[in-house]
Amino acid sequence: MNERSVGVALLGCGVVGMGVVSILRHQRELLRQRSGIVFDVRYVVVRDAGKHRGDLPLPLTTDAAKAIADPSVDVVIELIGGTGVAGQLVEQALRAGKPVVTANKSLLASRGPELFALARANGTCIAFEASCGGGIPIIDALTRGLVANRIDALVGIVNGTCNFILTKMTRENAAYAAALTEAQAAGFAEVDPTLDVSGRDAAQKLALLASLAFNVRLSESDIYIEGIDKLQAADIGFAGELGYVIKLLAIAERTGERLALRVHPTLVHKRDVLAEVGGSFNAISVYGHALGHALFYGRGAGQLPTASAVVADLVGVALGTTPLAFKQLRMFPDQTQKGAILPIEQLQSRYYLRLSAKDEPGVLAQVTRILGEQKISLSAILQHELVNGQYVPVVITTHLAREGDMQNALKQLNTLPTIQPPAVCLRIIDQPKEFGTA
Amino acid sequence: MNERSVGVALLGCGVVGMGVVSILRHQRELLRQRSGIVFDVRYVVVRDAGKHRGDLPLPLTTDAAKAIADPSVDVVIELIGGTGVAGQLVEQALRAGKPVVTANKSLLASRGPELFALARANGTCIAFEASCGGGIPIIDALTRGLVANRIDALVGIVNGTCNFILTKMTRENAAYAAALTEAQAAGFAEVDPTLDVSGRDAAQKLALLASLAFNVRLSESDIYIEGIDKLQAADIGFAGELGYVIKLLAIAERTGERLALRVHPTLVHKRDVLAEVGGSFNAISVYGHALGHALFYGRGAGQLPTASAVVADLVGVALGTTPLAFKQLRMFPDQTQKGAILPIEQLQSRYYLRLSAKDEPGVLAQVTRILGEQKISLSAILQHELVNGQYVPVVITTHLAREGDMQNALKQLNTLPTIQPPAVCLRIIDQPKEFGTA
Repeated sequence: MNERSVGVALLGCGVVGMGVVSILRHQRELLRQRSGIVFDVRYVVVRDAGKHRGDLPLPLTTDAAKAIADPSVDVVIELIGGTGVAGQLVEQALRAGKPVVTANKSLLASRGPELFALARANGTCIAFEASCGGGIPIIDALTRGLVANRIDALVGIVNGTCNFILTKMTRENAAYAAALTEAQAAGFAEVDPTLDVSGRDAAQKLALLASLAFNVRLSESDIYIEGIDKLQAADIGFAGELGYVIKLLAIAERTGERLALRVHPTLVHKRDVLAEVGGSFNAISVYGHALGHALFYGRGAGQLPTASAVVADLVGVALGTTPLAFKQLRMFPDQTQKGAILPIEQLQSRYYLRLSAKDEPGVLAQVTRILGEQKISLSAILQHELVNGQYVPVVITTHLAREGDMQNALKQLNTLPTIQPPAVCLRIIDQPKEFGTA
Repeated sequence: MNERSVGVALLGCGVVGMGVVSILRHQRELLRQRSGIVFDVRYVVVRDAGKHRGDLPLPLTTDAAKAIADPSVDVVIELIGGTGVAGQLVEQALRAGKPVVTANKSLLASRGPELFALARANGTCIAFEASCGGGIPIIDALTRGLVANRIDALVGIVNGTCNFILTKMTRENAAYAAALTEAQAAGFAEVDPTLDVSGRDAAQKLALLASLAFNVRLSESDIYIEGIDKLQAADIGFAGELGYVIKLLAIAERTGERLALRVHPTLVHKRDVLAEVGGSFNAISVYGHALGHALFYGRGAGQLPTASAVVADLVGVALGTTPLAFKQLRMFPDQTQKGAILPIEQLQSRYYLRLSAKDEPGVLAQVTRILGEQKISLSAILQHELVNGQYVPVVITTHLAREGDMQNALKQLNTLPTIQPPAVCLRIIDQPKEFGTA
């Protein structure tokens, strides 16, 4: 059978880049057998060619323009990250008509429509499976496997750093700061973890995933974001008593004609399959009108899992299937309209409230009156006996309520003389009806 | 933008066929928007055109040959099932150069290599996402998303009927017969459930999935099969006490140069994500050398979930991406060699044993001596006090042992005068190291 060689320029050679080099080298024969293609890494473009990168010979260069322009380079892989140099080089590659494989969710969340259009104008494509969910083939699932479905919701654990920290806090009763330190020591959190723990990384991924699921153009600013950096161990404990686990979820839901988009710590029922997703793993639940509930689970980050997605894209680009799908499908954000977004105040959700209340008569009556005035009805109350101190934690879960009403209630609760502000308020997501029953 | 029409002939119009008609009709606009293609069902080929099929007009015919030969038919969807008429019509379609979309795992498990080769010889393709895992895009994952991975193992719940029955037995302490009756009433089991409960349906799916994962040619006869029809509620109870759930698993593992392939009731640790897969849902765990553990979860059967996969294949065929991948990839069983199979006697597994033992001194000593002689070491023992009767259940779990040794031990245990034969022996699968920890 015919075999052919495909030339690759790799821009950036950090952790994931070395993973790509490793797969292309060690699985060269496997890839040849499966695809009939031999991949040749012709350039590895780095900032500092003198830096030690292991003992294997690499075709290192600092000359990105030369690598991109070389006619023997058929595909450009961008693994620099960020929106600066990476954006310029992706542009250069696309203008040269070269397909780009990238893991760069920041770049695509901020400049996706423009770059997709540039690819199209130059008769080429962008492949970005590695940008969301690491090695999980979720982009593929949304653009191919689930293409016959009107998607009703997408609910995901898409940030491995936060999930690692939350798993530590949940399973080992660790405090946030201690869990973060451990995540950093284990290589699951950056020295500056802000992008992850603030929820922004998850929001950038949600913008990409939801744009494909709902075929609308979205950006990070369309998404309501709360991180895990304010989360207290006490609330993980109380959630557990009530039968819930707290996860940082990225949620996109169709609500009538509008989309509700949000990233925040969320109480998930212990029976929900998302509750069992531990450590740095990611999982994305998708609800399709025909398929019902589907879940895609795997490593959301890390050298080889991310490289697995990059090389899968490389194979798809080299086979021609990815360019053909990119050319014909009309699901990409350069081809779709801006989505109508539901303001967070209008969100319907269930809530978890924790109040520090004075242990005296009538407090609960005051609290329930305020909630009742906002049309918020209670689902469960948890109050232990006062052990010491003046304040006792009162934990309340609610039925469905409007976010705006809950914010009004919180303002009033925080001014009650019997309550020590601020009240803690978290959202609960209900176990989907689809799950585990039939 | 260009739009085009693609003509479809649907062979068979049962539950899934009506689901395909429904999606093509109700999501016509969604599919047009996403793919630029309008699908026209030109023929629905049935055995009895007079049978009532709802109030919607259908282009019914009994003339399959005419439908297949009509130049306005671009794609043939086969949903007749079985290996008889379905096989003949798939052949006819392929000889006419028409791509075939099918959900027929029996046909592909028994005649796959021949039919794939026929498709190739006629410059066309077979798409079969719906044949395994219902609406879960697992064929896609194996042939695209995970293409850069050497697959080390594939472990799946791939039969919704069995999982529905086992979930009933586990969560409601139902007996096998009662759970089967309920599954039949709920439409999750056929009147004759043999193909499902015997494990054969799961084995046919495993043959297909493993042939793609490991790029070897496999048939049902390569797979060791035990069904759930002999499973006793008592063992589900004891497994639960020991921290396990019993699932019918389809398992394919690389063991040195050979593949171990088996379908049998299996003890899965409660922390394993597969343990939480309830009702008629399916889930497939795949272990790749780069990706690590990934799991694909969703509805493994049913009208719309299966139709979701059929229509996804239809879109892929119409876009040209599926034919292009079929033509270029070398992973399909017409292009691969027969796999080397590990005989079941050489399997290494952990085991669960339940013995009915006389409540008298020395019995456990006899049992442990027999196991010890076969180099089988114990992991846990569970024995409750005798409540009534002469025999007390003794439950033993073992460390890794050789299947052949275990079979030898069982023969001897069953001849002990202090043991009431037959001893129950089930296999345990260890929670993969990959899961949930980091």
